[in-house]
Amino acid sequence: MRPVAILGIGQTKIDEHWDKSLKELAGEAAFEALKDAGIERADSLFVGNMLSPLIDRQNQLGAHLADWIGMWGAEATKIEAACGSGAAAFRAGLTAVAAGETEVALVLGVEKMTDRAGREVTSALATAADADYEVEQGVSFVGLNALVMRRYMHEHGWKHADFAPFSINAHANAMHNPFARLRQKITAEQFEKASMVATPINLLDASPIGDGAAAAILVPAEKLTGRRIVVAGSASATDTIAVHSRRDPLFLSAAYASSKQAYAQAGIDAADVDVFELHDAFSIMAALSLEACGFAERGQGPRLGLDGQIQPKGRVPVCTRGGLKARGHPVGATGMYQIVEVVQQLRGECGETQVDGAEIGLAQNIGGSGATILTHILRLET
Amino acid sequence: MRPVAILGIGQTKIDEHWDKSLKELAGEAAFEALKDAGIERADSLFVGNMLSPLIDRQNQLGAHLADWIGMWGAEATKIEAACGSGAAAFRAGLTAVAAGETEVALVLGVEKMTDRAGREVTSALATAADADYEVEQGVSFVGLNALVMRRYMHEHGWKHADFAPFSINAHANAMHNPFARLRQKITAEQFEKASMVATPINLLDASPIGDGAAAAILVPAEKLTGRRIVVAGSASATDTIAVHSRRDPLFLSAAYASSKQAYAQAGIDAADVDVFELHDAFSIMAALSLEACGFAERGQGPRLGLDGQIQPKGRVPVCTRGGLKARGHPVGATGMYQIVEVVQQLRGECGETQVDGAEIGLAQNIGGSGATILTHILRLET
Repeated sequence: MRPVAILGIGQTKIDEHWDKSLKELAGEAAFEALKDAGIERADSLFVGNMLSPLIDRQNQLGAHLADWIGMWGAEATKIEAACGSGAAAFRAGLTAVAAGETEVALVLGVEKMTDRAGREVTSALATAADADYEVEQGVSFVGLNALVMRRYMHEHGWKHADFAPFSINAHANAMHNPFARLRQKITAEQFEKASMVATPINLLDASPIGDGAAAAILVPAEKLTGRRIVVAGSASATDTIAVHSRRDPLFLSAAYASSKQAYAQAGIDAADVDVFELHDAFSIMAALSLEACGFAERGQGPRLGLDGQIQPKGRVPVCTRGGLKARGHPVGATGMYQIVEVVQQLRGECGETQVDGAEIGLAQNIGGSGATILTHILRLET
Repeated sequence: MRPVAILGIGQTKIDEHWDKSLKELAGEAAFEALKDAGIERADSLFVGNMLSPLIDRQNQLGAHLADWIGMWGAEATKIEAACGSGAAAFRAGLTAVAAGETEVALVLGVEKMTDRAGREVTSALATAADADYEVEQGVSFVGLNALVMRRYMHEHGWKHADFAPFSINAHANAMHNPFARLRQKITAEQFEKASMVATPINLLDASPIGDGAAAAILVPAEKLTGRRIVVAGSASATDTIAVHSRRDPLFLSAAYASSKQAYAQAGIDAADVDVFELHDAFSIMAALSLEACGFAERGQGPRLGLDGQIQPKGRVPVCTRGGLKARGHPVGATGMYQIVEVVQQLRGECGETQVDGAEIGLAQNIGGSGATILTHILRLET
């Protein structure tokens, strides 16, 4: 398997894009990535998307977007792994380049969610959970995460307020990211007083949906000389789709397995990671991710936030561009936003939220309540 | 890229399976394939499916089915390319094995379509076409194919009856396939008198939908000695998603491009192909596929049927297990049925419809009205 490098990145602002269709957003990110890479055209397209069949009544996004972007004739495919679709597409493109099936792969995560009523979107998002044994009971996706958070607080003795640093950090960082959806600071007091969504998850524990697209260009690393960003680790693992089927619903076993495998591939461990773009769809998921990936002991995830270690200048910087919480969570695109943001950190392009001397970045994307988890490690080689 | 072989296959009968869910069908095919391969477990899962978000309200089929099958923790993902989803998943699994990302890949095509009313299924199938410029005009998927067939008849001077051999051959072959949905012979007279669906396409030009699953186990070829079936060619190409955008709507450019590439990989040309499992979703697609892949001159596809060349003992045997027309077309599973059937031919397991001495088989799966086309060449090595 030949090493693969990231030649270019592109993204749109995450927002309610009433004036742009899914394909227009996809095109915008794709052309930015091509421009950033200094090339005219990729020879294959890998699309990550979750909701287009339900929201846009459009399947076959591979061919659909290849057509729109002007990649006529090129191989194109779509990968879906719920909210993990973006990283799943990245891994598919990476594997194709590594296998020599393509020389220039364009990977694109895209989602257009705000064209439908909230109720319809909530119902569409619930397709990430088990239709027979979870959704059939009337539980929504946020409801499932609320059950996990409640249990976690009970088991480990945390108060709701102890999760505030995750959201405060995410919002503070998003202030400096022009592509983020929620560019406003929040305080601990606001965090505690926010409207309840599904107890104990309130509005400031939960990430906002949004419309957006993010893209990367992958090429064989051997084609680049000088400073380059390579994919040093890539792994995917699954857990049971229904949370109640897990031996321990408070342990993200697929995060543990995929991060362990990715660390081994990169020859590093958690202590070597300079920046961690984690999947904070809900504040509880930030805590569980930090624990499963080796940054905190079991049950001690919130401690990192309370001790001031998760900011860009801390020991374990997370969500440096705003995370899902404040940059926004256009579900099938999120995994590609994380990749793009890690590349920005390794390039030193993050200004106020730049992690000094960042050389190794981790991006972790989660589908469902931890059912599909993909971990990627990017490394700056000079 | 290391060569890849097919170690085992499995399939369910295609039918209206009122008593089995999508996951039960998937499990049945998966366990058959594992048993056929003589192994207990695969280490990765690639699922091809088109309609599960719309019909079953279930996304994330990778993790969902890995969970159901008992592949706890394994990498699992879903690929969607409309009716080309099955072969797209096969190509993803193949690429992963070739790249060394997995040693034993289970590829599974599955679709459960008959739980919903016909009108709802027709609407779901239309998501394969362009939502903005085709479906928005009120044209259904069969309607698009009808426009293509009408134009073809006009351009090349064929009568509707000239397409009869495609359907007659498919039905005759399905008689001998216990997994086929429509195991009944049809006559030229029945073909001409069948109920109209979308003129000129009648019920006997069109393939029936159905519920079903088909699976294959992929391993590095180097692990096998003696007789083995290897993947000698694999390619995917796209065309514009809207038929009206094509320079020539009567030419399957993505079939031409992907077959040309696959032939080159395998070091063969069309004349070397012993059996061709083509995508006869409608009789017109059989004609167009034969032309684009080099078996007939432009506009002369029906001639092969009229000259008696497409039966198992003919020069270009197609749809030897019934094809989409009579074996049935559970959309996202179809590409995997084609792979399974080619393997059966190369193993010499097809009884009455066995192609004598078959050593090279072609499987071609189409998403949309020719927008995504995947071509695979399997070869028996002794």
